[in-house]
Amino acid sequence: MPQEIEKKFLTKNDDWRQLGSGKSYRQGYLSGERGNTVRVRIAGDEGFLTIKGAGDGESRLEFEYRIPLEEAREMLMKLCRKPLIEKTRYKVFHGGFTWEIDEFKGENAGLIFAEIELQYPGQKFDLPDWIGDEVTGDPRYYNASLVSRPYSSWK
Amino acid sequence: MPQEIEKKFLTKNDDWRQLGSGKSYRQGYLSGERGNTVRVRIAGDEGFLTIKGAGDGESRLEFEYRIPLEEAREMLMKLCRKPLIEKTRYKVFHGGFTWEIDEFKGENAGLIFAEIELQYPGQKFDLPDWIGDEVTGDPRYYNASLVSRPYSSWK
Repeated sequence: MPQEIEKKFLTKNDDWRQLGSGKSYRQGYLSGERGNTVRVRIAGDEGFLTIKGAGDGESRLEFEYRIPLEEAREMLMKLCRKPLIEKTRYKVFHGGFTWEIDEFKGENAGLIFAEIELQYPGQKFDLPDWIGDEVTGDPRYYNASLVSRPYSSWK
Repeated sequence: MPQEIEKKFLTKNDDWRQLGSGKSYRQGYLSGERGNTVRVRIAGDEGFLTIKGAGDGESRLEFEYRIPLEEAREMLMKLCRKPLIEKTRYKVFHGGFTWEIDEFKGENAGLIFAEIELQYPGQKFDLPDWIGDEVTGDPRYYNASLVSRPYSSWK
């Protein structure tokens, strides 16, 4: 029973930039903002297909499969809703956890948030100095929501 | 560019039964009747995840991946819309083609149809004597439609 428990925060400054390296992500959705989501992702030069169940934003069933890069490209181009989500993901180690910081591009440029994955609900973790407000469960920050309501349209 | 070109027909008698052997299928949908469909299937003891693009019923983009049986079971149980589609699929060879005859169970009991996959649009093929009316492209016969409007509700 693969399950994902995530906490999501805004960042309050750029101090995390010197701490990790970035990888390019491009992803899109075959299905829904509500209920299940089916995501196609290219991370670096690897393709993935990911199914996430409906959840409360912090804890969701998740199934992920490697798929051929060329098939990921074709699904992104021909089947996924536009705009695609484009971002650079940085990984920063802090206090025994790996923080993933996503810096968005395109229609979501200007948006940055940071996530950690917990092993179990309620697990303790230390907040780095560059972490700002928590936005776990706020649907505006779901990647799938950023397709239909990109950050540039929030103002 | 994997593409699927299918022709679908009703059967007019049971003569096909003596010609092939059956395998048990159980499947459900993570996403939609319109546009893309994302299907979870257990065929015999193998799990599959299949993405099909929107299409005219005869020709659709298709991507299929083997997945662990246990994960297919969990997605069917927890994420797919109900009722699940349950059927026995028989394979019958005729005139150089493999005909797949689906005999449905549960809420779709009584429904039987037969399909062949063509290599290219317009390819010629011979109709076996037990084949009835063509229903290619009729959305009522899409497996995904049989979830929300099962055969038992057609009368």
